[in-house]
Amino acid sequence: MNSMCEGIRLAASMDGFRQSTLREIMSKAQGSDFISFAVGTPGTDLLPLDDLAAASSRALEGGHSVLQYGLPSPDLKARVIELMAARGVECTEDQVFLTTGAQQGMDLVSRLLLDPGDAVVLEEAIYDGIQMAVRGRRPWVLTVPSDPQDGLDVDALDELLQAQERRDARDGSGRPRFLYVIPDGHNPLGASLPESARDRLVELARRHRLPLVEDDVYGHLSYEQPGLPLRARDDRWVIYLGSFSKILAPGLRAGWIVAPRDLVPRLSALKHAADVDSTTVTQHAIVEYLGRGLLPSHLEFLRSEYGRRRDSLLAALERHFPPAAESLGPVRWNHPRSGIFVWLDLPDGADTTALLERAIEEKVAFCPGEAFAAGDPAPLRSSMRLSFADNPPERIEEGVDRLARVIAAAGFGSTARVPARSSA
Amino acid sequence: MNSMCEGIRLAASMDGFRQSTLREIMSKAQGSDFISFAVGTPGTDLLPLDDLAAASSRALEGGHSVLQYGLPSPDLKARVIELMAARGVECTEDQVFLTTGAQQGMDLVSRLLLDPGDAVVLEEAIYDGIQMAVRGRRPWVLTVPSDPQDGLDVDALDELLQAQERRDARDGSGRPRFLYVIPDGHNPLGASLPESARDRLVELARRHRLPLVEDDVYGHLSYEQPGLPLRARDDRWVIYLGSFSKILAPGLRAGWIVAPRDLVPRLSALKHAADVDSTTVTQHAIVEYLGRGLLPSHLEFLRSEYGRRRDSLLAALERHFPPAAESLGPVRWNHPRSGIFVWLDLPDGADTTALLERAIEEKVAFCPGEAFAAGDPAPLRSSMRLSFADNPPERIEEGVDRLARVIAAAGFGSTARVPARSSA
Repeated sequence: MNSMCEGIRLAASMDGFRQSTLREIMSKAQGSDFISFAVGTPGTDLLPLDDLAAASSRALEGGHSVLQYGLPSPDLKARVIELMAARGVECTEDQVFLTTGAQQGMDLVSRLLLDPGDAVVLEEAIYDGIQMAVRGRRPWVLTVPSDPQDGLDVDALDELLQAQERRDARDGSGRPRFLYVIPDGHNPLGASLPESARDRLVELARRHRLPLVEDDVYGHLSYEQPGLPLRARDDRWVIYLGSFSKILAPGLRAGWIVAPRDLVPRLSALKHAADVDSTTVTQHAIVEYLGRGLLPSHLEFLRSEYGRRRDSLLAALERHFPPAAESLGPVRWNHPRSGIFVWLDLPDGADTTALLERAIEEKVAFCPGEAFAAGDPAPLRSSMRLSFADNPPERIEEGVDRLARVIAAAGFGSTARVPARSSA
Repeated sequence: MNSMCEGIRLAASMDGFRQSTLREIMSKAQGSDFISFAVGTPGTDLLPLDDLAAASSRALEGGHSVLQYGLPSPDLKARVIELMAARGVECTEDQVFLTTGAQQGMDLVSRLLLDPGDAVVLEEAIYDGIQMAVRGRRPWVLTVPSDPQDGLDVDALDELLQAQERRDARDGSGRPRFLYVIPDGHNPLGASLPESARDRLVELARRHRLPLVEDDVYGHLSYEQPGLPLRARDDRWVIYLGSFSKILAPGLRAGWIVAPRDLVPRLSALKHAADVDSTTVTQHAIVEYLGRGLLPSHLEFLRSEYGRRRDSLLAALERHFPPAAESLGPVRWNHPRSGIFVWLDLPDGADTTALLERAIEEKVAFCPGEAFAAGDPAPLRSSMRLSFADNPPERIEEGVDRLARVIAAAGFGSTARVPARSSA
């Protein structure tokens, strides 16, 4: 039965299709007295405003064609190839496809590969944007567990793929059309896949002819030894998604896909149907910015600043939830090597969605774990995602103070033994 | 059977999903010696570069948040409401939804209303972008004829809707989910619907509970008495699509939808899945530009310039294809009141797709009629769409000279009696 809206019948795929939880939190958690760990926005204060303003001015000096419809910029593709090389990935211009950010990449790849009802593999906790991107196809979502430190459970994936292959041999229905995976700076877990898991993932992809949609938007933001993308290991089964949102500015809406070259004209047709072109003005501005060689030092700066913010968050959590307090119910979190998220588990029985209501009263926000549930939300109900990117260290400390009070008031953890702050 | 591409299985909806003909022509017909009537680009030389560059600079002085993710701009919505008022349409902020251009509007509305295999009504010759937007749903496309002067044949639509209603009463399958319609400056025909046809269209929509997706991207570009949009006649069944591409600049990628208000949160969820946000930088620049009150005089300027270009094209066609030459096979065209297109019919038997190959050798381009066929392409094979927006009058005359040579060489029309050019 289709939903009706003001007398107009909606597509069946709209059932349960609502605005994301994050979007709702974002609209509630506004105001300068608010400290939000909820949304995966990059640090507003770290955006290279002056350099981008100058780049934008130079771009607009390039003449009227900067404002016209345009074929995808070969200059921007050339810069993307350099950026990929910095991630250890070799690619050629005919493998690069420009998008309006990585989210559009997910949307286009979903349209490219999924028919209604097709199977797709997602982790039990995964970025809600990929879930929204596939939802229009009403897919059969198969889930695999993952670990907050090491990410996707490759053994569980292997078993799942074998079971699906047997099923497929029986009735032709089981083969998943792709696996979406974030090897570095996993959203929401903050996990990074060990090298051995990456090797096995590529091996499984080849054996099962399973396309891997690799989301590497946090790949340039590693605070320890950076991981090598899957695309560097395989150029046939990996469709790589990149973005300027986390490394330059989200408001530019610019990203890219590196795909097997024969897929590129198909993506191009799909993009034409979706929005004709990307914004030419901002594409030219990015070319100007990158052409001056400004990105490498900006990335250094971001890694240093985000590293400090991560350390502040981890230190504040240590202070508020010392191991000795575990008798009151353990509060645990991971230690991300890359990206901008920490995953925090409260004891079983906690309900972080309910907790969020109280947190918002205390002027602090996070994203409840169940907002990321691709399957059963119950196991994620006691977890939350904390984003450390968009608050300077002082505010992170104050935010964790508030959060700890909310958690303690709910009867979890303990604030009794919090030592005095070090002057970090 | 699904297509395979480099070993990767594609969605069945990708079958026959190719890059648009226009895109192909656009990539061939490049270079300053080329005169292209092919693509619906606004006049490059008419884009308000200096004012937009200044607006963009001021926007970037607004601080870092201009580069961040952002909720839809209330300031831009307020400006859209003013712009709608100038088109005779009343609407409120909660009915306005901001898009990455009208094409995204078509895509989102298609996702909102269409399930796979659903029926949709299109004209026999219609903008290929809407065809691409619905194609992912593999819809049942019902077509209605239209006239190059007066647009959609409302009598034929009435009959079709009645037949579909009878079918629906029998097996529940017939009801179309929407009709896409361009009342002013029809793409590709250049037609404008008479007022009486608009009234009847709205009446049919109400009677048959048929949503009308009204594309008004050329609505501000009328050279004679402008038509009143369908949305001014009905706010329940009309979903209105607007765009800054033709009135300001396509490279900004900004447009809007005016919809029944309860549909807006659904559109918002769909847009989040598609590309998260529109480009904040360019949205702010548009707000700055509109805030200075620059648009009304720019629209005056565009109407005056496009009016001259239209008249140049019509005059050049008159010179090359005088009525007396009809014995050699009539060449006919319409006289658009708005928009940027003229529709030209060659005698039966002509094949404008074949002719285009020769035209490109002569450094002139147009878009063959069959590129716009929503159903049988055969009746459109002898027609072509000429866009007059992106060439100044002198070039239009030279372009028609070349075109007439190509047409004459193919045995249609006649260039024998072309009078000397007037010094218009």
